Amino acid sequence: MTGAGPYRPTMADVARLAGVSLKTVSRVVNQVPTVDPALAERVLAAVSELGFRRNDMARSLRSRSTSGTIGLVIDEDLANPFYSSLAAGAAQGALDHDAMLITASSAEDSERERGLVLEMCERRVAGLLVVPAGGDQSHLRAEMEVGTPVVFLDRPPTNVRADAVLIDNEQGARSAIEYLVARGHERIGVLADRLTIYTMRERLAAAEAAMEDAGVPYRADLIRDGLHSVPDTQAAVERMLESPDPPTALFTLTNRLTLGALGVLGRQRSDVAIVGFDDFEAAALVPHPLTVVSTDAREMGRVGAELLFQRIAGNRSRPRTIVIPTTLVERSKG
Amino acid sequence: MTGAGPYRPTMADVARLAGVSLKTVSRVVNQVPTVDPALAERVLAAVSELGFRRNDMARSLRSRSTSGTIGLVIDEDLANPFYSSLAAGAAQGALDHDAMLITASSAEDSERERGLVLEMCERRVAGLLVVPAGGDQSHLRAEMEVGTPVVFLDRPPTNVRADAVLIDNEQGARSAIEYLVARGHERIGVLADRLTIYTMRERLAAAEAAMEDAGVPYRADLIRDGLHSVPDTQAAVERMLESPDPPTALFTLTNRLTLGALGVLGRQRSDVAIVGFDDFEAAALVPHPLTVVSTDAREMGRVGAELLFQRIAGNRSRPRTIVIPTTLVERSKG
Repeated sequence: MTGAGPYRPTMADVARLAGVSLKTVSRVVNQVPTVDPALAERVLAAVSELGFRRNDMARSLRSRSTSGTIGLVIDEDLANPFYSSLAAGAAQGALDHDAMLITASSAEDSERERGLVLEMCERRVAGLLVVPAGGDQSHLRAEMEVGTPVVFLDRPPTNVRADAVLIDNEQGARSAIEYLVARGHERIGVLADRLTIYTMRERLAAAEAAMEDAGVPYRADLIRDGLHSVPDTQAAVERMLESPDPPTALFTLTNRLTLGALGVLGRQRSDVAIVGFDDFEAAALVPHPLTVVSTDAREMGRVGAELLFQRIAGNRSRPRTIVIPTTLVERSKG
Repeated sequence: MTGAGPYRPTMADVARLAGVSLKTVSRVVNQVPTVDPALAERVLAAVSELGFRRNDMARSLRSRSTSGTIGLVIDEDLANPFYSSLAAGAAQGALDHDAMLITASSAEDSERERGLVLEMCERRVAGLLVVPAGGDQSHLRAEMEVGTPVVFLDRPPTNVRADAVLIDNEQGARSAIEYLVARGHERIGVLADRLTIYTMRERLAAAEAAMEDAGVPYRADLIRDGLHSVPDTQAAVERMLESPDPPTALFTLTNRLTLGALGVLGRQRSDVAIVGFDDFEAAALVPHPLTVVSTDAREMGRVGAELLFQRIAGNRSRPRTIVIPTTLVERSKG
């Protein structure tokens, strides 16, 4: 980026020194033939005096054409901390390649996802990072075929072949269950968002497999999915705690579910243990001892951008899937 | 947006029906003269069959020219919840005008801010939202003069005249102090980030004025500024609590300062009261009764985008400053 390294003169500096408008500098730099030759001479003198270098010029020319931006389509709102970290990583990855990031949310609507992708293609993004909203990404094939590389984040695409960067959901869920089982828990309640979401299916399947491996009996009444809002989650936790054989521990599969469950446990001054998938900023401050499966969303965004720029640069190798490991962060009271 | 309303055919639908590439559809729609007339005929037949409407075409044409994106330059990382809410609001405001949002962080470096603004202008954004990083925005004047409208967010610009959307820092700080004084506190510690930041100066000045109005004696040893990191904040809080005449309450001027202070108060099982500026997701869950001055960053982003699109549409009225009110959210234990 212009301002990130040592001082490099900009077109605005050239304009100021030459006493012309930025538009005139831009025209001269872009060799528009209709510029007054006297003005062009002043601009070129300023270019030479300031040492406005060839690669600055090249950059100006390049960024006026099709490259220079990549798109990020997420399925949730940017204000969700998982997605804002993802976007921050993608923005950093873009900057590393002298590009900028356009972001938009599909609001979990795959028809809208498709619209956003087309809007971004019409804005001539060099490539796209997509957190797929639905179970079918074949609608992206046309854009991918006309040469817009796509890298999928957090969830693999369905019906198209492309690079993907995923969280290690299996390792994460397994580490959470093993942690709880090692502490003597045998009645572990698992709370999941909708199972139409890939990460929910993966985490729930891994949690069930880990419980089976540990000899913990399967209990359908301790598994709740389809919890999409904080109130839904709170109601589900309350019902679970009131049941005749309540859980001694909870495993919550997203940060939103963790916050919902913590609210109930805190109000009831419950000593039910909890492990949450995804860390969050205030996790160390909540009164309940909260161990989390920490996922590096920022790294996922950064690696996704890196793969995308390899494709933009012409890499035509077979699609790759990169899995970002998780870390179990153990926290206890006091 | 394409996918947000009822079904609207896209260029990809046209391409599929006509049996041509998206590029060919795009060329026909954009009236590129070199398209094979037979192909063009097929495309136009598909356009007509699908009812691909005039305004869809117009939208396609428009978004290929200079409008269609706005830029947001923030001075911090997107992962900071205040800025991610701001960006989510700005993205929503952009979508309301059929536009998309490019985001980048100046990392609190005004030279980098300038570089990013130029990069965005070179990418032909229709306008810019800027959270100014430093004390002088005159470097933006050239771009504003060549017709890129700029709206400033969170902090007013210095040395340029433009629209700004600010938080009501004075009301927010005053409500916090009045809340604490009404509960009998007379030794109130105030923790601030660097005073080079406009919001810090405003909040600190308002807090001091509110204390003076309430007859609370000024105590320089209870006011700490320049706290930019969580460790800095924690060290400052520890020193303040160890002083011979420690505060009975703290007023923290940003969410990061609040998190830092809460960590210390929690570890020391201190009963010092705390009010924080800016709400955060887990605020209701922390063990310490935490009242916050809630600021609507999302609304600031949305209103900023709205003002920007008025300028983009040609509004040349005098620069306006819109102030977003704050709300005191009282929370107590249990």
